[in-house]
Amino acid sequence: MTVELKNDLLLRALERQPVERTPVWIMRQAGRYLPEYREVRERAGDFMSLCRNAELACRVTLQPLRRFDLDAAILFSDILTIPDAMGLGLYFSPGEGPKFQNPVSSEADIRRLAVPDPEEELGYVMNAVRTIRHELRGAVPLIGFAGSPWTLATYMVEGGSSKEFARVRGLLYQEPSAMHKLLEILARAVTEYLNAQVRAGAQALMIFDTWGGTLTRENYRDFSLNYMQQIVDGLIREHEGRRIPVTLFTKNGGAWLEEMAATGCDALGIDWTQPIDIARARVGSKVALQGNLDPCVLYAQPDVIEAQVAKVLQDFGSGSGHVFNLGHGIHPAVPPENVKVMVDAVHALSPALHAPSPDKSQAKSEG
Amino acid sequence: MTVELKNDLLLRALERQPVERTPVWIMRQAGRYLPEYREVRERAGDFMSLCRNAELACRVTLQPLRRFDLDAAILFSDILTIPDAMGLGLYFSPGEGPKFQNPVSSEADIRRLAVPDPEEELGYVMNAVRTIRHELRGAVPLIGFAGSPWTLATYMVEGGSSKEFARVRGLLYQEPSAMHKLLEILARAVTEYLNAQVRAGAQALMIFDTWGGTLTRENYRDFSLNYMQQIVDGLIREHEGRRIPVTLFTKNGGAWLEEMAATGCDALGIDWTQPIDIARARVGSKVALQGNLDPCVLYAQPDVIEAQVAKVLQDFGSGSGHVFNLGHGIHPAVPPENVKVMVDAVHALSPALHAPSPDKSQAKSEG
Repeated sequence: MTVELKNDLLLRALERQPVERTPVWIMRQAGRYLPEYREVRERAGDFMSLCRNAELACRVTLQPLRRFDLDAAILFSDILTIPDAMGLGLYFSPGEGPKFQNPVSSEADIRRLAVPDPEEELGYVMNAVRTIRHELRGAVPLIGFAGSPWTLATYMVEGGSSKEFARVRGLLYQEPSAMHKLLEILARAVTEYLNAQVRAGAQALMIFDTWGGTLTRENYRDFSLNYMQQIVDGLIREHEGRRIPVTLFTKNGGAWLEEMAATGCDALGIDWTQPIDIARARVGSKVALQGNLDPCVLYAQPDVIEAQVAKVLQDFGSGSGHVFNLGHGIHPAVPPENVKVMVDAVHALSPALHAPSPDKSQAKSEG
Repeated sequence: MTVELKNDLLLRALERQPVERTPVWIMRQAGRYLPEYREVRERAGDFMSLCRNAELACRVTLQPLRRFDLDAAILFSDILTIPDAMGLGLYFSPGEGPKFQNPVSSEADIRRLAVPDPEEELGYVMNAVRTIRHELRGAVPLIGFAGSPWTLATYMVEGGSSKEFARVRGLLYQEPSAMHKLLEILARAVTEYLNAQVRAGAQALMIFDTWGGTLTRENYRDFSLNYMQQIVDGLIREHEGRRIPVTLFTKNGGAWLEEMAATGCDALGIDWTQPIDIARARVGSKVALQGNLDPCVLYAQPDVIEAQVAKVLQDFGSGSGHVFNLGHGIHPAVPPENVKVMVDAVHALSPALHAPSPDKSQAKSEG
């Protein structure tokens, strides 16, 4: 009953198996830089109405695949669906980003939180996964995702986005045991949520730890990585007869790649501040690497984009284990035609790095 | 005529000479967390009026020294005085931070910029330095400072603060030669500005590269470090018969400490995400290190603050070359009494690390 995957480059690269060319997808590839996205978004009303409507979520998920020759789809959703399902009342304030009506402000608030049932409170996400997986018809794999417990906790305690994270990072020092209680329940919620996505059809998983890089080394280990480790340990790692690779991405986490790779994840996301050659030298024998073109390159002229794509590919070097991506989400003001330049450059330039010939000079002269 | 310095711990530590205890000061130590600062600030009107009034700038500079046993004063001013003096029209929008009336938006704008005369357009800063130096009466050294060219350029191109730095980092890829022109003139302006501060009485210098950490490795070298190098090369390094140490601080620059240390600066500022023991192992034989308590520790209880201060001191370890500080500026909501706990803990705990006895076990049992 399962449709055969026509393009499994992403899964092979994440498992560090040989590939013919480097797979490429883009963080936030379904998003505001696409006029067709903005049109659907406007019709849907607010952002969460779009997430909650499986048909529309599927439509925007597939939009970038129509324009660009991408090697993966990623579920259109938000990392804050879990705290919303826990009763925090997520809403989006224009120009201010995500907000919670009921932020977590005491240990009593934390004790009241329960793990949401992914097929009940979060059933709309699973419906979206099932719809997208069906509509993809095996064209490319579908990536499911969640926020890391620490990253979710920052929004839950701050009540929304933050610049300094003073409240949540202060709480960490003031009431570490309350913070651990919050992170434990989030780790369980994320594990169940991601496993439900796998059962619904997700073929690879990614955990976004957007704010782990704001922590000290010890706090990163104790309050962020520790809970990502619990999640990795509890995930379904094989489904429909195939491995479900999991990628961890801590923005500004370049200092901790070794510890991240030691969790047993399959791949690490690398932001653009971390040179991918150095990252590969440090952990590339253990995990695949995803990244890491500076998102601002996409504001430049085609020849600059091509040169920067070539640089990332060459910095990673030959051999398997590389998934091309930006170092963070695509900016809303990027012209879509520049995205095409990037995707096409990855396709044009990367086969030479995967040439099977042991005689490299010959492989080079051939193409 | 020069008054003898009564406490030169900071200068000795920056030169990696022996000290009796670890000197301590706090980034933004004259600031909104102090009620007496808020009072002067309110009377002065806007922030820049306070900076432009040498008497008031001196008064707020000295306020934290009355409350806490600090080992340095730092000029009360702003990094954006230079672009303001270049005609960009700095103002502070409530709740939004610094803004420019005339941001740099084209290469023609850049060509019109001129290096401001530090004793004319920026004479108010030099007057503040002279007034503070006089009023300090040799109690502790006075630190002068400036923003790095890259950091100043981010505000000048974005027109104020930014989250993604899309415009300035986009410009870097679109028009690198225009960016270099802007950075060259800023490097000359910063050099002249800091040298004028030294002539006016500053006894140590610090360059704040708040946004260098948003760059790729290559761009950091070419667009930020390269211009800090030019500044270091052009600075007065001895004055009044004493070395003028210079500290470079790139927030989120933990990956580039070796390159920063190779500029010939005397010390590096380390933010809290970078473990100071690792930083010392990497560059401690070349430069002193300043930092790096997580500013959020100051929200916690006294025993937690003391334990975290002890940890930073122990992580640096025994021997010279450490200036205790936060890993970034103090937060406005921190209770001043917690600052006292931190400063006193540095004084109480650090002498053991500087015990002159070669027999360390004996030194330990003695105190």
